[in-house]
Amino acid sequence: MPVCIIILIILRTDMGYFRENIEKTVGYTPGFQPKAADVVKLNTNENPYPPSPEVIQALTNIDPEKLRRYPQPTGDDFRQAAAQVLSIAPDNIMCTNGGDDMLTIAIRSFCDPLRPLAYPTPTYSLYPVLANIQNAPVAEVPFSNNYELPEKLTNVGAALTIVCNPNAPSATYISKDKLAQLAGNLEGVLLIDEAYVDFAEDNCISLINDFDNVIILRSMSKGYSLAGIRFGFAIACKSLIDGMMKVKDSYNTDAVAVEAATQAIKDQAYFKENVEKVKADRKILTEKLRALGFVVPDSSANFVLAQNPKADEIYNKLAEKNIYVRYFKNLPGLGDKLRITVGTTRQNQALIDALKEILSE
Amino acid sequence: MPVCIIILIILRTDMGYFRENIEKTVGYTPGFQPKAADVVKLNTNENPYPPSPEVIQALTNIDPEKLRRYPQPTGDDFRQAAAQVLSIAPDNIMCTNGGDDMLTIAIRSFCDPLRPLAYPTPTYSLYPVLANIQNAPVAEVPFSNNYELPEKLTNVGAALTIVCNPNAPSATYISKDKLAQLAGNLEGVLLIDEAYVDFAEDNCISLINDFDNVIILRSMSKGYSLAGIRFGFAIACKSLIDGMMKVKDSYNTDAVAVEAATQAIKDQAYFKENVEKVKADRKILTEKLRALGFVVPDSSANFVLAQNPKADEIYNKLAEKNIYVRYFKNLPGLGDKLRITVGTTRQNQALIDALKEILSE
Repeated sequence: MPVCIIILIILRTDMGYFRENIEKTVGYTPGFQPKAADVVKLNTNENPYPPSPEVIQALTNIDPEKLRRYPQPTGDDFRQAAAQVLSIAPDNIMCTNGGDDMLTIAIRSFCDPLRPLAYPTPTYSLYPVLANIQNAPVAEVPFSNNYELPEKLTNVGAALTIVCNPNAPSATYISKDKLAQLAGNLEGVLLIDEAYVDFAEDNCISLINDFDNVIILRSMSKGYSLAGIRFGFAIACKSLIDGMMKVKDSYNTDAVAVEAATQAIKDQAYFKENVEKVKADRKILTEKLRALGFVVPDSSANFVLAQNPKADEIYNKLAEKNIYVRYFKNLPGLGDKLRITVGTTRQNQALIDALKEILSE
Repeated sequence: MPVCIIILIILRTDMGYFRENIEKTVGYTPGFQPKAADVVKLNTNENPYPPSPEVIQALTNIDPEKLRRYPQPTGDDFRQAAAQVLSIAPDNIMCTNGGDDMLTIAIRSFCDPLRPLAYPTPTYSLYPVLANIQNAPVAEVPFSNNYELPEKLTNVGAALTIVCNPNAPSATYISKDKLAQLAGNLEGVLLIDEAYVDFAEDNCISLINDFDNVIILRSMSKGYSLAGIRFGFAIACKSLIDGMMKVKDSYNTDAVAVEAATQAIKDQAYFKENVEKVKADRKILTEKLRALGFVVPDSSANFVLAQNPKADEIYNKLAEKNIYVRYFKNLPGLGDKLRITVGTTRQNQALIDALKEILSE
């Protein structure tokens, strides 16, 4: 006990306004959002097609009363619509202010200085930022060859393990069987970040019936073209949802966003048509990049990871031509790779044409 | 060092999925949102008038591109418009997903198990809930008579002190001079929660020029009738804003909400007209409640706190008549008081008529 008091005094002597971990943290850097209209923007994994006309219609007809009043706190209109589409119960869903809000809620629910976060790397660079804000230790376990799940992930004593699947930025997919095995071996919670799963051939929702420690993260930003309205959701057994509900802000999703997301998920025909277009264009883009000498793993997402020793130079030359892709220059293992969002057929062709020019210089 | 390891083992033996403080917490209970249309809803401090027609116009004309793309991460359109209206710099503003998001960001920025939160009581019941999620100690210091600032507030060693001003649920106002004195005496940060300040005669924005430890919280929910879109903001010196920006979610405010809030704050004429209507009706409501025997402090907010020994019974009888007010039955000092939102002239009269009936039974 005297030891604790001494530690307290030492820490308090140096106290600034901010917590020390916040002072030291750099913060997350979102992808560059160019303002000019004439750019080819393939850097932040947005859907190249507009949201469902039903969404626009709903916003046009919005009842001013919905703006004036506090929203229903748990987004129940969306929960009911999503539950029907996904064949689960509304109680298995928690609405969030984008997928990032879901990640923040999970890390605040499960992690602290004595309860580490673990994830395979390279992956979404927000995870360590959020762990640092929570002052939680991080166990980064490199993916094995071909982005297979590393066995060591079960041995690091994490309270929360996140697997991004399809993974960003590799676009690779880990099978449901492998993730079921992982969930069974973990003592803590497994969060499967399915932000990009709309473009994959399978998903892990059914695991919530077999495991009380599995959370699925979904986003309306990619498959449903709603990055601007910030809407994501968690899918899990009721006890996990109930616990996380205590951590979320009371009114974390706004009335307009709930309405837009509800209309979007109801319009499955429009959604599926767009997803199929992106998948067809992804195949063509992958083949053309490979033909230009890039090493590109098969993608299960709406982007591809393209390896080339001259990635740095290519990135800068593309930007000069107003073509933006994402380059994680300083992240381990990514210095020779570019993450390229699948755009429209025309945008993808503009990229390929520019790459041909750059590579022939 | 060996002591730390032993503590770790003890804690890990009992580890559930959730952090212990989350398991134990009850969570915040938002005010009841009745679904029926024919109720008199005076329980959650919404503005009785619709938002500016400019807001509705902006939503009707929303560009689908704004929905498809990620929003500008710091809500710069709003920051510029608000900076002009409030005569400050855009750099002094951080946009948040409602005022509650601002509170969450502040508590995550400044508080932890060694850095307590302090506030005078009774006040907004969300503060202790957020501190508990952060596992931060709380120092609750009762207001002195007539809701004056308690002197003891400077002696509790808080990293963050929150003063709700006008205070909820008392609706009372503490002068800028008194808060300046408090800011100067505190070692930590002073957050002045001005969610209701649009209905007061003064505000504390100018303190950010004199103190590097003062944050002002503002909300678009009350004065601007936008509770449904979730939009608040912080006002502070640049160094505090920059630090809190690292803690907020990258895209915490959505493109539609930013557009709605921007149009609302630009329409100052509409805003001022509604505020004056509410203030005029507040005066009449206060007088009529006093005439019925309620003890009601002068209000600087869009609600009044009305004291009556039969508060519990009155609350239930009002609800039976489809008139909803807020009753914090179990909070210290509030068992004999009702918090009543100022509604339209007609809603307020309906309340008074119902009270006359109930009190004459």
